[in-house]
Amino acid sequence: MCGAENTTPLAGRPSDGLTPGLGLYSDPIINLDHGDPTIFKPYWMRSRDQLVVSGSELMSYFSRGGHPCWFMEPDFEKSVKRLHGLVGNAVSEGRYLVVGTGSSQLYLASLYALCSPDQPHPVSVVCAAPYYSSYAEATTFLKSSLFKWEGDANAFDKDGPYIELVTSPNNPDGTTRNPVVDRGGNLIHDLAYYWPHYTPITYCADHDIMLFTLSKCTGHAGTRIGWAIVKNEQVAGRMVKYLELSSIGVSKESQLRAARILGAVCNEIEAPPGPNLKFFDFAKLLLSERWGKLRQAVKRSGLFTVSEFPLAYCLFFREYTGSHPGFVWMTCKDKNLDCSGLLREQRILTRDGRRFGSDASCSRVSMMSKDEEFDVFLERLAKVKPPEKSNACNGLLQL
Amino acid sequence: MCGAENTTPLAGRPSDGLTPGLGLYSDPIINLDHGDPTIFKPYWMRSRDQLVVSGSELMSYFSRGGHPCWFMEPDFEKSVKRLHGLVGNAVSEGRYLVVGTGSSQLYLASLYALCSPDQPHPVSVVCAAPYYSSYAEATTFLKSSLFKWEGDANAFDKDGPYIELVTSPNNPDGTTRNPVVDRGGNLIHDLAYYWPHYTPITYCADHDIMLFTLSKCTGHAGTRIGWAIVKNEQVAGRMVKYLELSSIGVSKESQLRAARILGAVCNEIEAPPGPNLKFFDFAKLLLSERWGKLRQAVKRSGLFTVSEFPLAYCLFFREYTGSHPGFVWMTCKDKNLDCSGLLREQRILTRDGRRFGSDASCSRVSMMSKDEEFDVFLERLAKVKPPEKSNACNGLLQL
Repeated sequence: MCGAENTTPLAGRPSDGLTPGLGLYSDPIINLDHGDPTIFKPYWMRSRDQLVVSGSELMSYFSRGGHPCWFMEPDFEKSVKRLHGLVGNAVSEGRYLVVGTGSSQLYLASLYALCSPDQPHPVSVVCAAPYYSSYAEATTFLKSSLFKWEGDANAFDKDGPYIELVTSPNNPDGTTRNPVVDRGGNLIHDLAYYWPHYTPITYCADHDIMLFTLSKCTGHAGTRIGWAIVKNEQVAGRMVKYLELSSIGVSKESQLRAARILGAVCNEIEAPPGPNLKFFDFAKLLLSERWGKLRQAVKRSGLFTVSEFPLAYCLFFREYTGSHPGFVWMTCKDKNLDCSGLLREQRILTRDGRRFGSDASCSRVSMMSKDEEFDVFLERLAKVKPPEKSNACNGLLQL
Repeated sequence: MCGAENTTPLAGRPSDGLTPGLGLYSDPIINLDHGDPTIFKPYWMRSRDQLVVSGSELMSYFSRGGHPCWFMEPDFEKSVKRLHGLVGNAVSEGRYLVVGTGSSQLYLASLYALCSPDQPHPVSVVCAAPYYSSYAEATTFLKSSLFKWEGDANAFDKDGPYIELVTSPNNPDGTTRNPVVDRGGNLIHDLAYYWPHYTPITYCADHDIMLFTLSKCTGHAGTRIGWAIVKNEQVAGRMVKYLELSSIGVSKESQLRAARILGAVCNEIEAPPGPNLKFFDFAKLLLSERWGKLRQAVKRSGLFTVSEFPLAYCLFFREYTGSHPGFVWMTCKDKNLDCSGLLREQRILTRDGRRFGSDASCSRVSMMSKDEEFDVFLERLAKVKPPEKSNACNGLLQL
């Protein structure tokens, strides 16, 4: 999971990047609240790969009888395992794979799988702050008595069963994470960003439940494909049951598309170097260039700090690389300032730190927008002034 | 909703039609427990329509900014409204359309939308028996305190808010349904089978929430596309919120596929008659032939009864037509007999009447399997004997 999601800016509805300025401004609003990964589109524009589906294909509910995940296309499973094998970021051979409608569906499937209908009390669900803003809402919206959101894992002191979410690299702040509660609870590792364009691959992850998503791996968010790698057969079986009951499986067209996209990335990795950059090289270059520009802009502004990340040896690139997260976690040096508010005055929508279990001096900003949006973001960042010197129109703040 | 779903036969996993006989028999098991609509595949084999998606298409989470259902593809909405306009089975113009990962996801979205997190008690959810077997499990599996499954609407006598599900034509028994509780509760109309190949289109439905699914309309179950037609903007908005939180929208590949499939059906309806039957004509002919054969087989057997349906004037075909439901609801004349058990002795898997809020003398049998499976079903039906004369192997009953 991790992403672009549940964003309800201004008019109460998500918008796609450049939003008309409601007639108040000639310049459009830049929406960096969500993490729509349109940054990678130029790479895929040059791809010749196509998904072709005839009218009579993929008609059945079933992909294969007898398989634990009966709605999972064999080609999808094959591509996922092939990619993990080539990248070396996670153990997938000998593990159960479960496909989902994005990893958000698999997050709920994991919670369901780790709880029993017979338990006397809801299982506590925690994650170290700052945590992905959608976890809380996704955990609470159905008022399930199977599980209960308890917020920051660092402050969690209750007895009884618990589930800790470990998001690494973390959304919103890009840090590498380990569990913080050490009392034998179940763990869900959200590894949406554990790919070499975002962060050095320093080990081959082999946790009990690991969630990945096509959105963040290749940028195909609209395809709504995620996958879970699961060690325990019963847990995988219960996740499949959740997917049966909540949507009777997962789009087969999307699974085949994902299989093709991931297969194309694998083919490139295995091929000798050509005239064009391969996907992970292309994506890493793009993100590292943006991070370089951003750090310069932040330094010039003097108002904010952003995280520094250590270099580490990446087992995939076979060299020391830095981290280039999909989001920047901006923090005002003056802790009394409202980070999102300051940016909003420049018609930049970002996500308020309070939604991540932090405070208003922080804000999450997408680094994965289109080029033109990112450039406008940097231009406007240069104009941000502390409130007493602000010449922005306060009217917009009330929208 | 309505379908093939949540079927866990024999080995604890769904299987796809002809299942290997576990080494006990030379003849395979016929799985008619679920409603996988493979019956229509021969029609689509002749279609030249293809979905083609390039590597850079459909990458964003967003289909259009500013639309209430921000993840719904415009082409999908257009095709759905066009088809309802041509068939005349439901009012869709001037209504809110919400796309879902099958109508099963939209069923849960509807429940969520009709309940408030602030209500003191869970809202009762009822449906007149025999009701679709997955309603109960889908309503209860997350132990939500927003809503509570209360079973048969005919026996419902509690005060307080309630939601009644009205499935028409009904799954499992194909009857035309109206609400039975008349105390001002909210209604969800599941109209998955309200298409002219299954039943005469006698009126243009215009209920508050109407659910449809591509699975039952054209047979594309694997595409996992359903849609809801909703009158109230706030209810539609809350359904969209559910889809955001549970899966951040719906596969765009599947939406485009559905748009093409429905568009092809519409084009045919509008075209002059050609050498081949149009979709609804083809599908109605196929189903009516099967029903004819089934009725003969049931008559010969003497053990069962099946529903009779009145002829009615179909506004789409402009003639009197019968009903040819996707399932047959078989009832043993001897109410002490176990209908599914008798059929299972002939290696025919069906769904036990008790799962539909009825009793074991009834069973639901899919009429939508492949031709070869349907033919084997009829052959074996002729061999069914009451228990005292049975020569079947009881060993299978214990599987």
